[in-house]
Amino acid sequence: MVKVGIVGGTGYTGVELLRLLARHPQAELVAITSRKEAGMPVADMFPNLRGHIDLRFCDPQEAGLDECDVVFFATPNGIAMQQARELLATGVRVIDLAADFRIQDIEVWQKWYGMEHACADLVAQAVYGLPEVNREQIKTARLIANPGCYPTAVQLGFLPLLEAGLVDERYLIADAKSGVSGAGRKAEVGALFAEAGDNFKAYAASGHRHLPEISQGLTRYAGTPVGLTFVPHLTPLIRGIHATLYARLTGEADFQALFEQRYQHEPFVDVLPFGAHPETRSVRGANTCRIALHRPQGGDMLVILAAIDNLVKGASGQAVQNMNIMFGLPETLGLELIGLLP
Amino acid sequence: MVKVGIVGGTGYTGVELLRLLARHPQAELVAITSRKEAGMPVADMFPNLRGHIDLRFCDPQEAGLDECDVVFFATPNGIAMQQARELLATGVRVIDLAADFRIQDIEVWQKWYGMEHACADLVAQAVYGLPEVNREQIKTARLIANPGCYPTAVQLGFLPLLEAGLVDERYLIADAKSGVSGAGRKAEVGALFAEAGDNFKAYAASGHRHLPEISQGLTRYAGTPVGLTFVPHLTPLIRGIHATLYARLTGEADFQALFEQRYQHEPFVDVLPFGAHPETRSVRGANTCRIALHRPQGGDMLVILAAIDNLVKGASGQAVQNMNIMFGLPETLGLELIGLLP
Amino acid sequence: MVKVGIVGGTGYTGVELLRLLARHPQAELVAITSRKEAGMPVADMFPNLRGHIDLRFCDPQEAGLDECDVVFFATPNGIAMQQARELLATGVRVIDLAADFRIQDIEVWQKWYGMEHACADLVAQAVYGLPEVNREQIKTARLIANPGCYPTAVQLGFLPLLEAGLVDERYLIADAKSGVSGAGRKAEVGALFAEAGDNFKAYAASGHRHLPEISQGLTRYAGTPVGLTFVPHLTPLIRGIHATLYARLTGEADFQALFEQRYQHEPFVDVLPFGAHPETRSVRGANTCRIALHRPQGGDMLVILAAIDNLVKGASGQAVQNMNIMFGLPETLGLELIGLLP
Amino acid sequence: MVKVGIVGGTGYTGVELLRLLARHPQAELVAITSRKEAGMPVADMFPNLRGHIDLRFCDPQEAGLDECDVVFFATPNGIAMQQARELLATGVRVIDLAADFRIQDIEVWQKWYGMEHACADLVAQAVYGLPEVNREQIKTARLIANPGCYPTAVQLGFLPLLEAGLVDERYLIADAKSGVSGAGRKAEVGALFAEAGDNFKAYAASGHRHLPEISQGLTRYAGTPVGLTFVPHLTPLIRGIHATLYARLTGEADFQALFEQRYQHEPFVDVLPFGAHPETRSVRGANTCRIALHRPQGGDMLVILAAIDNLVKGASGQAVQNMNIMFGLPETLGLELIGLLP
Repeated sequence: MVKVGIVGGTGYTGVELLRLLARHPQAELVAITSRKEAGMPVADMFPNLRGHIDLRFCDPQEAGLDECDVVFFATPNGIAMQQARELLATGVRVIDLAADFRIQDIEVWQKWYGMEHACADLVAQAVYGLPEVNREQIKTARLIANPGCYPTAVQLGFLPLLEAGLVDERYLIADAKSGVSGAGRKAEVGALFAEAGDNFKAYAASGHRHLPEISQGLTRYAGTPVGLTFVPHLTPLIRGIHATLYARLTGEADFQALFEQRYQHEPFVDVLPFGAHPETRSVRGANTCRIALHRPQGGDMLVILAAIDNLVKGASGQAVQNMNIMFGLPETLGLELIGLLP
Repeated sequence: MVKVGIVGGTGYTGVELLRLLARHPQAELVAITSRKEAGMPVADMFPNLRGHIDLRFCDPQEAGLDECDVVFFATPNGIAMQQARELLATGVRVIDLAADFRIQDIEVWQKWYGMEHACADLVAQAVYGLPEVNREQIKTARLIANPGCYPTAVQLGFLPLLEAGLVDERYLIADAKSGVSGAGRKAEVGALFAEAGDNFKAYAASGHRHLPEISQGLTRYAGTPVGLTFVPHLTPLIRGIHATLYARLTGEADFQALFEQRYQHEPFVDVLPFGAHPETRSVRGANTCRIALHRPQGGDMLVILAAIDNLVKGASGQAVQNMNIMFGLPETLGLELIGLLP
Repeated sequence: MVKVGIVGGTGYTGVELLRLLARHPQAELVAITSRKEAGMPVADMFPNLRGHIDLRFCDPQEAGLDECDVVFFATPNGIAMQQARELLATGVRVIDLAADFRIQDIEVWQKWYGMEHACADLVAQAVYGLPEVNREQIKTARLIANPGCYPTAVQLGFLPLLEAGLVDERYLIADAKSGVSGAGRKAEVGALFAEAGDNFKAYAASGHRHLPEISQGLTRYAGTPVGLTFVPHLTPLIRGIHATLYARLTGEADFQALFEQRYQHEPFVDVLPFGAHPETRSVRGANTCRIALHRPQGGDMLVILAAIDNLVKGASGQAVQNMNIMFGLPETLGLELIGLLP
Repeated sequence: MVKVGIVGGTGYTGVELLRLLARHPQAELVAITSRKEAGMPVADMFPNLRGHIDLRFCDPQEAGLDECDVVFFATPNGIAMQQARELLATGVRVIDLAADFRIQDIEVWQKWYGMEHACADLVAQAVYGLPEVNREQIKTARLIANPGCYPTAVQLGFLPLLEAGLVDERYLIADAKSGVSGAGRKAEVGALFAEAGDNFKAYAASGHRHLPEISQGLTRYAGTPVGLTFVPHLTPLIRGIHATLYARLTGEADFQALFEQRYQHEPFVDVLPFGAHPETRSVRGANTCRIALHRPQGGDMLVILAAIDNLVKGASGQAVQNMNIMFGLPETLGLELIGLLP
């Protein structure tokens, strides 16, 4: 049994970790911390967990995190970088669901996240937890930077094309749409039901924090700097990200076969038949990324559609997938989830 | 392994049975029929099942249903009563998720359902599949009438009070609200997103088919005919039923203790603390019924709040629960589901 | 032209007042105040008003409110009672959309609203702004207590029956459902899209602030104290209240005719045919209350369904209706609104 | 007064025409036809119209359409082309809200719409009713092809850039998202609340009927054939289209000024400040198209965001705007609508 701790369990990635770990046959949930809610039964805040999890939120000091095998940080940006070093020193492995360790270039990180980084040296040791790319390094990693939600969908969608060098990497476009849970469980006017409901809008179209994370990945796969235009949108659904990707072809290939081969051994990437349309509800609550390809009018623009659940493959499910890999467990353990449809 | 067949798998109770049975450790899905869609892979219609179920819809004639241990009818009303006799004769047990066997008084049934009943004698043999009431009979039943969604929530909410004889059974009120999936996967204007979305209305307030089913149950628990006013409403959520029940007290008791004791051994009924408010999302995708009590201003009106997922405890989950009981399996097998929140 | 000021225009009742007054042919919007947002163009906060309203939020001190003919308070509870006296002294009429002047019994108000009342004497002078009941007093009123949203729907639904003395006033039940905009434009976790979306729940079932307001009205219409059970619910729609009312009949009458006669001259109450089901979307954005009656199974329980838009007839529309009456304008001026359907 | 007839009033564009025309000071609604619902009061089908419109649906034969000044066709594709000639011959002007007269190349039309065209000669006479482009021709037009919803948003977004010749017209991308009302008031499984709710997907990504309509317009504005990739998506909102447009710059200019100047006299196009994000709810129920520009990281990709209400500026509102122009009325008459927010 893997002893698991969670730091900061009162947000959506926290409750999603709890949902997954409560039914995980090889995970033992030891502690979940919240300074503010210490003492409150977890199931009082998240009533879906009644009867499944008996833990109370506890103060970080009393959580005994250093006796865990792995600690997940389901905290806002800037927390894990303060606390990871100490835990790592005691042999605990760390999976950060926030952005602290995702960007290798510290100056870029500091610019986009608006704060001083607390441990640049650890960033260099961190492994970017996208198993479809970094599975081998994840196996032995001590510190995982769990990818962002948009970056997961966009990278998985572009990956085979960039690896194969078949598109003009200077003009990639990612038009992405996210459900409102992506904004977190924070009291903000813009995420109110009466604001975000029955409404659609773009946001941060001039620059979103996930842009440098995505660019870093795409540049690596392409082997050359990419030019990416990334426009995120807020759509009135609770869970789900849909990325619509546009790439200009520079060479010919059987693109469908390319994608199918690239992902044929990936348990959580599902390449649909050519011309299909993945729906976010088909992965609601599941750890799957579904992808489909289109080539409108047979021209030289390839359209890639990718759908994930932002809280599962885009956050907590991928984190558990990383945990499974790190501890030598079957990668799909506890993650054989079927999307809730309807 | 229990060999399972499903008749009529193209509706929401059908796909929900598939979702549950695909992960059920003791069920082997043998066949799923659809005259109209015979030959189509199930996962083409329900993309959430891709990678989980490889079956194709098959013609009922070629389904080999008579070699199943149990057959679920996820069909419209009036189908199971045509086909059950033959299956039962071959030793197959039958669980009907529609209304054909729910009402013992055939004339009442015919009046409310507007058709001739095809097998009145079988109705007398059918067991009403509400495990919290009929567990013993279910164990040996050959034919189960799986309860309706509203009836499940309303009966579980009133049950302890009527058994204890503590309320005026002549003036019971059930104000119930259902998500739109309760209308089924049928192309109807009233269930369109642009009609049912951002809208709230009552329907069938002068008389709904579930009224006689509920009254039959409540009358049995009370030991005397009840007077029930039942008003269903359509609310813009996909899954979920919330019943708000009003009963005038005729005696005193510790009502909270009464409910807790009545349901203390029930794995799928969760009595919340007095004064709580169960949310439908806390049981989204789960087989649980959550109940809470209120006594406004300490007066003689008791308010009972009950929430279920209409497709799980209100349909397919309860059907699988019945199957587990019928076949001597642990009652919770395959049903240890955590509500998807958010 | 009526010179109009609005205090506290950054909430939903504020923007709704603006929407209505911007197109009102006899209203001149002079000032809208917000201490916090002073200087910001109103249309920057509410982009639907771009091109329709050029005003900026201004500091209350510089608003020149004392030169208005009427001032609307679209503020939280407890503000208008601090500021009304001074305005009234200068001859300005006041319409408070909050609860400060709704309850005549100061002790009851203080208990439910948890604060000391600042001007009990003004409460006695205030007219409860439900035109269908108090039209004559409204004409000459200096201070209007604009009714709450639930109280509007529930009172209009019960009114004809209580006036006629045809129901058992000891056991009235109001099961009411509200859209999320009723919670206001406040950053609260419970009103987030990811919390309130695809979810249904009761709240404050043991006691809600609108209970004493409704009871005060119903007691007046009945001429005797009423017993009311009032359970509000939160439903995932943006605008709309649906009240389902239950009353036990104590006498016979043509109830449909009773309602039609009572409301035959009311421009904003629409009695539907017997057995109909009013939909909240049919009054989305409109100042209408639609009502329908049911008598299930011809028994002695009457069910009344009433639907309003909580922000229009339940708040800002009714406030403008009161303004029209106070200033001798046609009552429907600026309020000939058609519900937005779909 | 302009005498108005509507053919086929039972769909969403029909009820929206009714909503607008009922309050139009210079329109007299003479007849609204529906073969299927002849005799039914319009307000029975669309309860928002109760008290506003007393008409009944009538049989087309008895509608007296030839005595109207203008007839709107709010019918499925393929109807107006059967009936327009006869009406035009009697001097009635015709505005078709469907696609019959939008595409000048008959072969292209027949390919995309899958039917033989009934009156190619009339297509040549029809004026494409986008007032921002064709105002002069609309004034004297006898037959208007009212633009599609996507085409309106996409064309208004690209128009100034193509006219100015500042972008690479070979690689235009339009990523568009529509509310579900765009699918019409037709009983189809895919548009059910339980299917389209809490879900996001692309559809027709390999080719949508609005592609040739948009391309025809863009080609005209550019003066050279354009290459357009157009991917529509279905998003869970009732009304609204959001188009996110991508164009590679080939020249420099003050793009914000370019847009502001192009649209400075347009009453229904609102250019937001540079870097803003138009929301669909800001135009809910309004005839406005709101547009904003972004230039991510100052690169050579321009992003244009355009939001409309698909039923108003994308259909019925634009049709009334065309009527106003045709009959010499103020263009904004009856269309001074404020978006319903929240």
